Amino acid sequence: MNEFELIRRLTASLPTNPEVVTGAGDDCAVLAVGAADRQLLFKTDAIVEGIHFLPDTPPEKIGRKALARCLSDIAAMAGTPSAALVTLGLPKDFAAGRIEKIYEGLNALARLHQVAVVGGETTTSPERMWISIALLGFVPSGKAVLRSGAKAGDAIFVTGELGGSLAGKHLDFEPRLVEARWLAGQFPLNAMMDLSDGLAGDLRHILKASGVGAEILKRAIPLSREAKLKSKAGDAAKPAFVAALTDGEDFELLFTLASKDAVPLTDAWKEKFPDLKLSCIGKIIPGEGIKLRDEAGVRPLTAHGYVHFS
Amino acid sequence: MNEFELIRRLTASLPTNPEVVTGAGDDCAVLAVGAADRQLLFKTDAIVEGIHFLPDTPPEKIGRKALARCLSDIAAMAGTPSAALVTLGLPKDFAAGRIEKIYEGLNALARLHQVAVVGGETTTSPERMWISIALLGFVPSGKAVLRSGAKAGDAIFVTGELGGSLAGKHLDFEPRLVEARWLAGQFPLNAMMDLSDGLAGDLRHILKASGVGAEILKRAIPLSREAKLKSKAGDAAKPAFVAALTDGEDFELLFTLASKDAVPLTDAWKEKFPDLKLSCIGKIIPGEGIKLRDEAGVRPLTAHGYVHFS
Repeated sequence: MNEFELIRRLTASLPTNPEVVTGAGDDCAVLAVGAADRQLLFKTDAIVEGIHFLPDTPPEKIGRKALARCLSDIAAMAGTPSAALVTLGLPKDFAAGRIEKIYEGLNALARLHQVAVVGGETTTSPERMWISIALLGFVPSGKAVLRSGAKAGDAIFVTGELGGSLAGKHLDFEPRLVEARWLAGQFPLNAMMDLSDGLAGDLRHILKASGVGAEILKRAIPLSREAKLKSKAGDAAKPAFVAALTDGEDFELLFTLASKDAVPLTDAWKEKFPDLKLSCIGKIIPGEGIKLRDEAGVRPLTAHGYVHFS
Repeated sequence: MNEFELIRRLTASLPTNPEVVTGAGDDCAVLAVGAADRQLLFKTDAIVEGIHFLPDTPPEKIGRKALARCLSDIAAMAGTPSAALVTLGLPKDFAAGRIEKIYEGLNALARLHQVAVVGGETTTSPERMWISIALLGFVPSGKAVLRSGAKAGDAIFVTGELGGSLAGKHLDFEPRLVEARWLAGQFPLNAMMDLSDGLAGDLRHILKASGVGAEILKRAIPLSREAKLKSKAGDAAKPAFVAALTDGEDFELLFTLASKDAVPLTDAWKEKFPDLKLSCIGKIIPGEGIKLRDEAGVRPLTAHGYVHFS
């Protein structure tokens, strides 16, 4: 059983209450908190030594990454982050200086986004360090952009360039908070999420949640320089477009909106964010699954994103 | 460096923002969320296999304990829990049935307290399982009971009986949510927390936060049956009152209020909660630290509660 199958089983019948606007299954939970104008976003994310970072990863970057991943989920809802709690699993022989540097990296990113760090705890993790972040944010009431709203005919967009994140971007990426709020403020977005497990796998989450399919255009997928370089490393190397579809940890935005808005969006984006690429990679179609269009025609895409435990 | 010293250093200069009412250092963070009548409580807590539970602990009890510990922190603020996220660190060979049973135990306790489980995630933890809970709750605005309000002259109370929790109570304890809300509704409590690391260590947190000392009466400390039984196990056994001071994981309430309220409280409590012991164990005094009064007189208490990493 892989991670997604387990989660599907576990989330089949979770306890709920009237405060829940959107429960498990989106980038964040959405909760009504008794404020007329806004709703709460609630998210946790953990990174583990040896998996999401290495013993020799600079500690400031570990702390930065831990928070940035959660911030990216708040961005995916078009929200504004507010307050974080930090849970550290630490081996008994932890180096206090290293932990302080982890906090320095985390705190610097928190300050940049006006996020308060309001506590947390340490616990013992004998074999390896891990960090779990719990993050709260806000969104204007009813304005959270979910995964479930994609409609046949929508244009599909991604920010930035995809693939090869492990070469360094996974430690340095900028959560797309400003961009996501601008997008949701300027255009009626139908669905949005952040790319954490790879475009192919992540797009499938939007498709399943929305009950639709997608056709994507191979040559429209924005390939990162790292994905291209790595594809030339040898005969066994992954083609760059496969890396872009499956590498994971891109932390870019994936979203859909009515096709009539695609050109106005592209024009407005170039003016607002001239340094960040925005690509229309295809369209939402009736049905299910992803079809890839290239020079040879259209075929179903069977490659999945990165799946834990598979 | 132990856990508390590390946390002291890490929390010396955390990022903050105007939404923070009470940041790091209390049982929960308190946040203003734009609602006139209530404030948000925010807490995380993690349990780790081999430390807080064992490989052969019944999985329903593992899930129950993970949530109950966080509920106890909401109780300590006199709050009402609302929504939880569950993060699971899992070895690659996890048994799906065991995880489902962990969720069954957790969900049952959540339903009992009308807590919504709104998602979470799984991540890889090769050597041992861990569970981290992030919990939100509410409290009427300005009514969170903090650790910092104890005043010289206050009476000090604890609920239940202390010590010996590892014999079983640590898996089965009832978070004192109903009792805490009743207490805060009936009497002006000056300080409150839940007992997780042992009375001696935990009381010191209230004393430090409040800038006061305490004198406790040895024979007034309510000793659990398990602490008493264990103290008779042999010459090397811990005296029952030392167990009550230092064992940890009691998850009872420790609180202080003006001494004039001590007798009315005791009377009202007996009527409201006839099955749960309430004990006045001493008084808040000027100064610092804990003094223990027994047959021989008064002496400083040097025993600390359970300290991780010490």
